[in-house]
Amino acid sequence: MSQVEQQLEDLKEEITSELPSDISVSDVKYEGPELVVYTRDPKKFARNGDLIRKLASQLRKRITVRPDPDVLSRPDDAREEIMDVVPEEAGVTDLDFHADTGEVVVEAEKPGMVIGKHGSTLREITQQVGWTPEVVRTPPIESSTVSNVRNFLKQEREERRTILEKVGRQIHREEMSDEEWVRITTLGCCREVGRASFILSTPETRILIDCGDKPGSDDVPYLQVEEALGAGPSTIDAVVLTHAHLDHSALIPLLFKYGYDGPIYTTEPTRDLMGLLQLDYLDVAAKEGRTPPYDSEMVREAIKHTIPLEYGDVTDIAPDVKLTFHNAGHILGSAVSHFHIGDGLYNVAFSGDIHYTDTRLFNGAVNDFPRVETLVLESTYGGRNDYQTDQEDSERHLKKVINETYEEGGKVVIPSFAVGRSQEMMLVLEEAMRSGDIPTMPVHLDGMIWEATAIHTTYPEYLRDELRDRIFHEDENPFLAPQFNHIDGGEEERQDVADGDQCIVLSTSGMVTGGPIMSWLEHLGSDPDNTMVFVGYQAQGTLGRRIQNGWDEIPLNGRSRGKTLSLNMDVETVDGFSGHADRQGLMNFVKTMNPRPEKVLCVHGDESATQDLSSSLYHEHNIRTFAPKNLETFRFK
Amino acid sequence: MSQVEQQLEDLKEEITSELPSDISVSDVKYEGPELVVYTRDPKKFARNGDLIRKLASQLRKRITVRPDPDVLSRPDDAREEIMDVVPEEAGVTDLDFHADTGEVVVEAEKPGMVIGKHGSTLREITQQVGWTPEVVRTPPIESSTVSNVRNFLKQEREERRTILEKVGRQIHREEMSDEEWVRITTLGCCREVGRASFILSTPETRILIDCGDKPGSDDVPYLQVEEALGAGPSTIDAVVLTHAHLDHSALIPLLFKYGYDGPIYTTEPTRDLMGLLQLDYLDVAAKEGRTPPYDSEMVREAIKHTIPLEYGDVTDIAPDVKLTFHNAGHILGSAVSHFHIGDGLYNVAFSGDIHYTDTRLFNGAVNDFPRVETLVLESTYGGRNDYQTDQEDSERHLKKVINETYEEGGKVVIPSFAVGRSQEMMLVLEEAMRSGDIPTMPVHLDGMIWEATAIHTTYPEYLRDELRDRIFHEDENPFLAPQFNHIDGGEEERQDVADGDQCIVLSTSGMVTGGPIMSWLEHLGSDPDNTMVFVGYQAQGTLGRRIQNGWDEIPLNGRSRGKTLSLNMDVETVDGFSGHADRQGLMNFVKTMNPRPEKVLCVHGDESATQDLSSSLYHEHNIRTFAPKNLETFRFK
Repeated sequence: MSQVEQQLEDLKEEITSELPSDISVSDVKYEGPELVVYTRDPKKFARNGDLIRKLASQLRKRITVRPDPDVLSRPDDAREEIMDVVPEEAGVTDLDFHADTGEVVVEAEKPGMVIGKHGSTLREITQQVGWTPEVVRTPPIESSTVSNVRNFLKQEREERRTILEKVGRQIHREEMSDEEWVRITTLGCCREVGRASFILSTPETRILIDCGDKPGSDDVPYLQVEEALGAGPSTIDAVVLTHAHLDHSALIPLLFKYGYDGPIYTTEPTRDLMGLLQLDYLDVAAKEGRTPPYDSEMVREAIKHTIPLEYGDVTDIAPDVKLTFHNAGHILGSAVSHFHIGDGLYNVAFSGDIHYTDTRLFNGAVNDFPRVETLVLESTYGGRNDYQTDQEDSERHLKKVINETYEEGGKVVIPSFAVGRSQEMMLVLEEAMRSGDIPTMPVHLDGMIWEATAIHTTYPEYLRDELRDRIFHEDENPFLAPQFNHIDGGEEERQDVADGDQCIVLSTSGMVTGGPIMSWLEHLGSDPDNTMVFVGYQAQGTLGRRIQNGWDEIPLNGRSRGKTLSLNMDVETVDGFSGHADRQGLMNFVKTMNPRPEKVLCVHGDESATQDLSSSLYHEHNIRTFAPKNLETFRFK
Repeated sequence: MSQVEQQLEDLKEEITSELPSDISVSDVKYEGPELVVYTRDPKKFARNGDLIRKLASQLRKRITVRPDPDVLSRPDDAREEIMDVVPEEAGVTDLDFHADTGEVVVEAEKPGMVIGKHGSTLREITQQVGWTPEVVRTPPIESSTVSNVRNFLKQEREERRTILEKVGRQIHREEMSDEEWVRITTLGCCREVGRASFILSTPETRILIDCGDKPGSDDVPYLQVEEALGAGPSTIDAVVLTHAHLDHSALIPLLFKYGYDGPIYTTEPTRDLMGLLQLDYLDVAAKEGRTPPYDSEMVREAIKHTIPLEYGDVTDIAPDVKLTFHNAGHILGSAVSHFHIGDGLYNVAFSGDIHYTDTRLFNGAVNDFPRVETLVLESTYGGRNDYQTDQEDSERHLKKVINETYEEGGKVVIPSFAVGRSQEMMLVLEEAMRSGDIPTMPVHLDGMIWEATAIHTTYPEYLRDELRDRIFHEDENPFLAPQFNHIDGGEEERQDVADGDQCIVLSTSGMVTGGPIMSWLEHLGSDPDNTMVFVGYQAQGTLGRRIQNGWDEIPLNGRSRGKTLSLNMDVETVDGFSGHADRQGLMNFVKTMNPRPEKVLCVHGDESATQDLSSSLYHEHNIRTFAPKNLETFRFK
């Protein structure tokens, strides 16, 4: 009997002895970080609402109870009973029964009403039918990403269970080493922005954190060095992804091409956004005639191996490592990743990309942990002069530009990144229209923005408190406001918009490097009454930056290749909508951190930004700070 | 044609065009770092004394010329002619002809007389016979180590040529990477003394520097981690050994057990001493009932793969790395190892163990380099109070103790390490007797001391200038002084010595942890007229330390197991004979370094010693200093 078999045998015995004698345990299994308890008495289990919580706290494990397949009622009967238990307002749109695990997936417009207060409705379902319900939200805006991911996972359910069981055994393997150390190796994003990638290692475990590309460059993380994947992909136990942006996620599918077959831990929205952005990454590469480093099959592998975690869940991901995600405030699902290593040995937090203060979309980043000795901190705006305009001033500026354009009968075009910036803009515009600060007019969303917004509406629990409350309690979802229009009719629709009344267009790409924004330039660029507003950073070498700098002869591509567009529209720049904490935000993140870390590694910023931030944190708080280079290894214990 | 073949083809063409038209080139080959040029006209080559030097400087390669085997004269004829050319006083003891390479190894008591002024006699030999002479010294004291190594290498000559050719191709391979970086990874001896081991790496090359054990502990270097041998032994291009002590060399044979089959670069005396000490390491393990990690076959593999370099030779050991050894003053053959990386990209020096000032045996360590950006510095005595007694005072103290013991009719027993300390003692005693400071009396050498001394006498060019001159020019070899007696008659001889007149005994082990010193304790320990003198560091937990601390009841082992010895002899400690620089020496090494390094890594000392030294060097010279932990990686470019 293997050591894990023995462990499960012992757990089964312990659980049996803890349970009332009329509740039987037929099997105990690991599935990823969860301990799954199969019982022939699921209804009795459910009746005793506190049992699972007590077991979990005693065994210090995440526990799921499932019915033994033998005792399941027929799905058709169960379906009826479930619809009886769940209030009609919950808006159940689908019930999906999985006899192999005794789970029923309930898709509903209002998942909260399927769950009930403290899970009371869920328990009632099990008491009635024995099946274990799992609830997912019906996207209020149809999202092909969300439905593709869900369908794919349904289809791969069996292989996924095999994966989860294997991962579960890995997580709960016996510790082999009697040494203790904790190390971080930098594989990218040090003294640069882009290709984020780190290895966190102990004698027992090696975790890869992020694996991104570098926009505007072919540089990738140093995966080939011995301490990365040089000794083979199986030397990595787990991958943790802090958020979906490509400079953190683009090369994760490549790991599977190399033969990695372990878990990816991330949040559920990050999983979906990651899929969306990676497929778009492949599309763009194909359009630009480049051979991408992997194909879409590998994106699916990545999704299949993803184990989603919620903010605040303390999760065993290795015998000596517990991972907890916390809101990072940067984009949907972005996570500050906290690692507790050993039994109180050491704690490391990776900030990922953060926004310290609240934005319209998200709460500010969490910086409150039970313990943190070392913080790995992004430094995008860590330079001594990287202060950003206050959001209120920014919004005032934006509204002024919109109003002026409106009065002249013009249209406003905002190039915008699909994920994050666009949804923030939507909230700003919806609020401004609702309060009458700007006239209510159509806001056209072009490119991937609509799809990204649909994903946002699928996961409202990841949004800012006030926004979430508004969606949940007041049933007022600003993303569903009628003025938002999805451009899904191609050039014809764009022509109609261009020929019509005043409006606002939000379109990708955010740096005017391709995508539908190029069409909008053609349609609206020559009219001096129109205004182009930049709300995001325009990198060196992009057309966006050139337009900002005053270029007014734009070479055209595609069907207008060879022609030149004379740009007569106004060009404005409104700062302050960044998804990143500015210099003050980064300083405050550390200053108000509880507890204060002993060491800070300043990464994900150019050389001067990381060094400025490192030096200021050292002088202000007298903590040991570093501005690492790529390819260094720091040992902390 | 492979890239190296093409390179050799080009070199052959270039050399042919450079040579006078009557000198033919029949082949050009790499053997390790050397370029070997085969010619059908060796005599003409030799007549033109400057040709090789010119070629070497033009091609920037080390060049050896050998005769094409077709044109060789018969060994019997050659032998006679060689004996005619070489003066009789050279004391030729052996001539060994190797028709495969056209080399003749000349073993002589006075190699200098075989070489002649600026190599004139060597050239004359070739002019006469065509063969290429290689000269080695006949050990003035017979050394089984030296003769075993020489015989073994003779026997493995063919395989060794294969190895050298393979290494040569590796060294001269085309560079693959267009990135540039230089890194040092610490695998041992950080914040501790023992298990010295580092990896120096570039995108192109990975070099392991030292691989030792940790005395008094089972700890070994972290060879198993991914960035060491985790991705396989073939990820290491070369091993460099700074000196033979086991805390630097013990685990080198283990590399070959793991499958390493690349070169070891070290000095010739280090190769021989390494063999001696590694075999002793296996013996001691066997005697103590431990299973050693490798067997003697692996020691032979290590010797077979050793490429000896001389101090000052700048040697290509990889496409982007040149290695130069410099005297380190610590033990015979010990080397400060200087790495020049890239074409002027970066320079790193590893001090190994050093003695900064001259001792009787060795010149002080070299600290003069064309360039050094980073120095990796030993810190054994780097603590703020680690000052040692001046050698003159130490010698005065020692002589006083000897004289006092002599007057009381007693004998002096000095526990001593076989390599280094013993030979220093021999020089002190010989000088003191010659000058009349102490009476001339027998000095008995027991344990491995005699053998280690024999190795010293084989390589006088590695000794201190004055000592070397005395041996070469005045024909006065102090190690051959008649009062030195090799105890080779076992217990019987020891009994005779114990029963005889006053004398001095130098015996291993240096910390009284076993070996013949245990016998001497039994023979001489109970007599209060005798004196035991400690001249070296006695580690915690050793019997030596206990005796120093006043223990006078010594439990016996071996044939006297169970009995106890009452120690009545005097016990004295004379400091100041260390092979390590003391605090002042280490500070001076850096202070007088030319040029001053930008960064210093303080290693090979306990935590406080490395931190004290690091902090003092920083404050005194304002250079960046570190006291690394094991398992860290520093990037310098």
